[in-house]
Amino acid sequence: MLSEADNVLLTRTGPGTTMGGVFRHFWQPVALSSELPEPDGAPVRLRVLGEELRAFRTTDGSIGVVAPRCPHRGADLFFGRNEAGGITCAYHGWKFAIDGRCLAMPTMEPGPAREKAEQDVRLRAFPVREAGGLVWAWLGPRDSMPTLPDLEFLTLPAGHVFVSKKLQQCNWAQACEGGLDTAHFSFLHMAVSDAPDVADRLMAKVSSDSDTVRWMRADGAPRFTILEHTVGLVLGAARQADGDDSYWRISQFLMPNHGLAPNAFPGENYHGQCWVPIDDVSCWIYNYTWNPERKLTDAERQRFRNGSGIHAEVDADHVPLRRRENDYLLDRRRQKFETFTGIEGVSEQDAAIQDSQGLIADRTAEHLGPTDMGVIRFRRMILAAARDMAANKPPAAAHQPALYRVRSGGAIARRDVPLRDVMRARFGHDHGLVPSPERRDAAE
Amino acid sequence: MLSEADNVLLTRTGPGTTMGGVFRHFWQPVALSSELPEPDGAPVRLRVLGEELRAFRTTDGSIGVVAPRCPHRGADLFFGRNEAGGITCAYHGWKFAIDGRCLAMPTMEPGPAREKAEQDVRLRAFPVREAGGLVWAWLGPRDSMPTLPDLEFLTLPAGHVFVSKKLQQCNWAQACEGGLDTAHFSFLHMAVSDAPDVADRLMAKVSSDSDTVRWMRADGAPRFTILEHTVGLVLGAARQADGDDSYWRISQFLMPNHGLAPNAFPGENYHGQCWVPIDDVSCWIYNYTWNPERKLTDAERQRFRNGSGIHAEVDADHVPLRRRENDYLLDRRRQKFETFTGIEGVSEQDAAIQDSQGLIADRTAEHLGPTDMGVIRFRRMILAAARDMAANKPPAAAHQPALYRVRSGGAIARRDVPLRDVMRARFGHDHGLVPSPERRDAAE
Amino acid sequence: MLSEADNVLLTRTGPGTTMGGVFRHFWQPVALSSELPEPDGAPVRLRVLGEELRAFRTTDGSIGVVAPRCPHRGADLFFGRNEAGGITCAYHGWKFAIDGRCLAMPTMEPGPAREKAEQDVRLRAFPVREAGGLVWAWLGPRDSMPTLPDLEFLTLPAGHVFVSKKLQQCNWAQACEGGLDTAHFSFLHMAVSDAPDVADRLMAKVSSDSDTVRWMRADGAPRFTILEHTVGLVLGAARQADGDDSYWRISQFLMPNHGLAPNAFPGENYHGQCWVPIDDVSCWIYNYTWNPERKLTDAERQRFRNGSGIHAEVDADHVPLRRRENDYLLDRRRQKFETFTGIEGVSEQDAAIQDSQGLIADRTAEHLGPTDMGVIRFRRMILAAARDMAANKPPAAAHQPALYRVRSGGAIARRDVPLRDVMRARFGHDHGLVPSPERRDAAE
Repeated sequence: MLSEADNVLLTRTGPGTTMGGVFRHFWQPVALSSELPEPDGAPVRLRVLGEELRAFRTTDGSIGVVAPRCPHRGADLFFGRNEAGGITCAYHGWKFAIDGRCLAMPTMEPGPAREKAEQDVRLRAFPVREAGGLVWAWLGPRDSMPTLPDLEFLTLPAGHVFVSKKLQQCNWAQACEGGLDTAHFSFLHMAVSDAPDVADRLMAKVSSDSDTVRWMRADGAPRFTILEHTVGLVLGAARQADGDDSYWRISQFLMPNHGLAPNAFPGENYHGQCWVPIDDVSCWIYNYTWNPERKLTDAERQRFRNGSGIHAEVDADHVPLRRRENDYLLDRRRQKFETFTGIEGVSEQDAAIQDSQGLIADRTAEHLGPTDMGVIRFRRMILAAARDMAANKPPAAAHQPALYRVRSGGAIARRDVPLRDVMRARFGHDHGLVPSPERRDAAE
Repeated sequence: MLSEADNVLLTRTGPGTTMGGVFRHFWQPVALSSELPEPDGAPVRLRVLGEELRAFRTTDGSIGVVAPRCPHRGADLFFGRNEAGGITCAYHGWKFAIDGRCLAMPTMEPGPAREKAEQDVRLRAFPVREAGGLVWAWLGPRDSMPTLPDLEFLTLPAGHVFVSKKLQQCNWAQACEGGLDTAHFSFLHMAVSDAPDVADRLMAKVSSDSDTVRWMRADGAPRFTILEHTVGLVLGAARQADGDDSYWRISQFLMPNHGLAPNAFPGENYHGQCWVPIDDVSCWIYNYTWNPERKLTDAERQRFRNGSGIHAEVDADHVPLRRRENDYLLDRRRQKFETFTGIEGVSEQDAAIQDSQGLIADRTAEHLGPTDMGVIRFRRMILAAARDMAANKPPAAAHQPALYRVRSGGAIARRDVPLRDVMRARFGHDHGLVPSPERRDAAE
Repeated sequence: MLSEADNVLLTRTGPGTTMGGVFRHFWQPVALSSELPEPDGAPVRLRVLGEELRAFRTTDGSIGVVAPRCPHRGADLFFGRNEAGGITCAYHGWKFAIDGRCLAMPTMEPGPAREKAEQDVRLRAFPVREAGGLVWAWLGPRDSMPTLPDLEFLTLPAGHVFVSKKLQQCNWAQACEGGLDTAHFSFLHMAVSDAPDVADRLMAKVSSDSDTVRWMRADGAPRFTILEHTVGLVLGAARQADGDDSYWRISQFLMPNHGLAPNAFPGENYHGQCWVPIDDVSCWIYNYTWNPERKLTDAERQRFRNGSGIHAEVDADHVPLRRRENDYLLDRRRQKFETFTGIEGVSEQDAAIQDSQGLIADRTAEHLGPTDMGVIRFRRMILAAARDMAANKPPAAAHQPALYRVRSGGAIARRDVPLRDVMRARFGHDHGLVPSPERRDAAE
């Protein structure tokens, strides 16, 4: 439960807000690379942290992320021409490079006056990186700009990685909380039928391991252990497994808006998500799946594309087919006889229940319990960063990109083994940090 | 004409408003029984007096009307599972009975801590009654809760009663005023053609009695007499009939939001309406037709279902087919040659003209005349109740449910007979009060 | 660049605003005559300068423009009956003439009381004129009402004139600025292909003269000269033509919201536009084309009707087919290879780029240059009128209707000839004023 003031602090990320200041100290995904498929292609509209932006891939393949309006008379550069090393406003032909320099001001006669004017006018432009199939923009102060976070999927060959994007129709924070709250798996995503064919058919989409599904159904009250580190939280939830064993599902929160999923056993695919506010009542979720050991197969890619796990079934604009306006195509007959929600898809079940908390969840009237420990610690960590921010102290995590190279996943261990030891056994490190490729190469 | 302050006082019924306080001292219809057709069926969303609510019919057939959000993390119970004596939140499986008690909190391990937590958490729940094909909820203070109003249709066998529901796209008060304003019948609902086939065809839908239609067309300035009683108003409007006779159309206003229609002659069907605010710019109208002497025929039910009199032609969500967005399918050719409005249906004509006064009618710029006496007295009565309410004095009508057992209708009488005598002759009582079944049975 | 305060002053025209006061000192087009095609036809809804109005053509063919609500109970007269010399409210039959007099109050019994009531009640009504295929209304103080402006097209036989109307989805002022800004033609409306078939096909729609197109493409930095006169501005833009010649494109601004187009050579059709605010974020543009010397041909009318030059391709409600919601059907392939915008139609290209400046353009962050001289002088002139208005001094232009009889168009002249001389040579008058028919007749 938060005070109204803290709920506002947590959920508002627009220009001038405190949490917006925190977010602007981290590189943010602003588009899929595939949204800008070709040099000199169509400019695209972006909205990030309550700010309108435009992006275009210029002639040499690099990407500009810029203010939406031409500095001349404010015409929208979305209507502009992207050609020959810059974007040209459709109104009067003023042209700008990806770094915002004015390349041409043809409404002035050639000469020194025009040259001076061209030098004096700049289009606001933002630093951009492209990695892991995502376009990343730096919307914060230039003198604080670090390198990209060293997320493992950003450093793998493209064949090892799949990324997708989906619209979430609520505030970023409750969606992020849903990603960190692994207790709900025992309910929201479960089958309700005991008939083997139904359960098998349904749960096969959720997990390849029928034992883990059985353990999750049986134990809805997992025991949480949280390990805090500089750039985030390790969130371990232990459920009763067979005999004396615990089944651990371990997720990661990474400042300020990444979450890594708790399911992967060694050799399986890893999954993560990043919740990027569009405004205070909607966000884009960038979903990334990677396998450090092998390429993803075509069948896997096809499955993710059709909606599977964190990847939703979306239209050409990345809007889920099952969404707020159509009640996620909830089927009450299926809810009665087959699945807990009657909604198709793990991603869509998450979206439905998170959206249902309201456009911005009211955290002043909650009743939190032991399984909400992850949610509580997430709030505590990010609100602390916001309070630092309000005191002009940038987040410590912002300048530790190397510490983002962590994994999360599942493990089975004897009941008395503490999380730290489980982490070491599963990942070789207390926080799941994995060696960078260089170090790995060196070790091989 | 009202002051701006009184217009606000009259029209706002949300939580914390004075008129909202008046409304919350009366049982309110919140759904048709048929919207909750089966035990353990789909939960439904309600919005009443500006409050979001959820309703579900539980395993034993009784109905819960509850707050929309799970007390745990605020997920919407619309997405919940309605089964085995309670509603279960789809997020983490917390389960609640129709009275709001927590039946299960499976995110906690069994034991005393869980038992205590289950006892400490309650879902806000409201008293519910089901009668006359309607679901009634008590949204006010528990210690002021009376029995249901003794409206005659609530006490008759189901075969004698037909109820329907339609969306009205404006504030409740101007719609209620339209129901009490019987003078408009001489205009809004009239045919304009004198050709007998047109007039007969059109007016047959309005009235079974061509004399009364003729009298209404001829006399657009009926003389009003109002009789006030504890729970409402008798509103008599006398038009010139043949010879020395007057044709009386007598309606009833019943606090705070019922109106009984003025047309029924003895033996005919009686009609009433209840305007229940959804918010300040829309309301549900619950329409009830009853015949104390015989069952309604299948043909009558079919006619009402297709739209007739107070019953509109609606879609599966009770939204009229002819509504604000489509200008009520106004046909200008028919307006020129056939009917006063060119809009099909008495209910739809009422809706059109009431909506047309604005989302909330501005009563500060009116020019009221003698035929507006009913409207004036309605405002006076309910504003007096609001002023009492502001002084913490609940409405006197709230605790007189027995006085709601009244009828309204038509009568023909010599011009010099006063309304009180007309009432006694037509209904056997000054205010149209009819004996309760017990008393009637005793008298037989 | 304007201050925020001046931007607000410029763009807000609703009731009670200063610029709204300026506008209300000029006759405003409020409908096409063709929207009220027949006596006793359907009433129509208007919204002008943020005010709701209703219009109807009464039995004798004259037009009423009135307040939207019946003075009795506020029902909307849109639903009223237009017949026999007045509009009758559908609720209770009160009837009003086009001048607002109450013609019947049938809810009162005939007699002196009714006669007095009928005299005491008035519907707010506005003076109306019909000329040039347009309906003009006077929304300002009655004692300041001048005659209609003597725009040439208003005084020609109907065969010489074509008028149309289109919705513009932004504030009036930036749309008007776009009409006065003739520099953009070298960009926004240009072909990008040098292939003769493409350029010819595309530019034939823009201009009948391939030389002028060539000059406009080659010179994007025309030199502006502005001549201010009592009712507006002559805006001359000179581009390099062949040899020592300049190609002049001369437009006119006429207070407060007319613009005349710069293209017509002698004998060609003249074009003008009037931007009439619906509210602060949309306006109707009334487009008028006239030829003083000959009737327009059927082929021309057909071309204008299909969308050509200032005339857009619109639906039955005068909403452009290519509009804000559908990104003006921008075709990126055509933008790359054929036209500067990829949007079909000069009018639609204008709409797209003007809308793109925002619902209300932010003029506090512009970088204006020499080609923006027309825009600058327009703002200066109309803001001066607003400042006078704020000091209760009505605009000088308001009482000079005869000075609106001006033309604009194109001319070719030696480079060293100043605009005033070009005007005299092209139009016979410094400001393009043309003799009135009477004077012309007298001279013949």
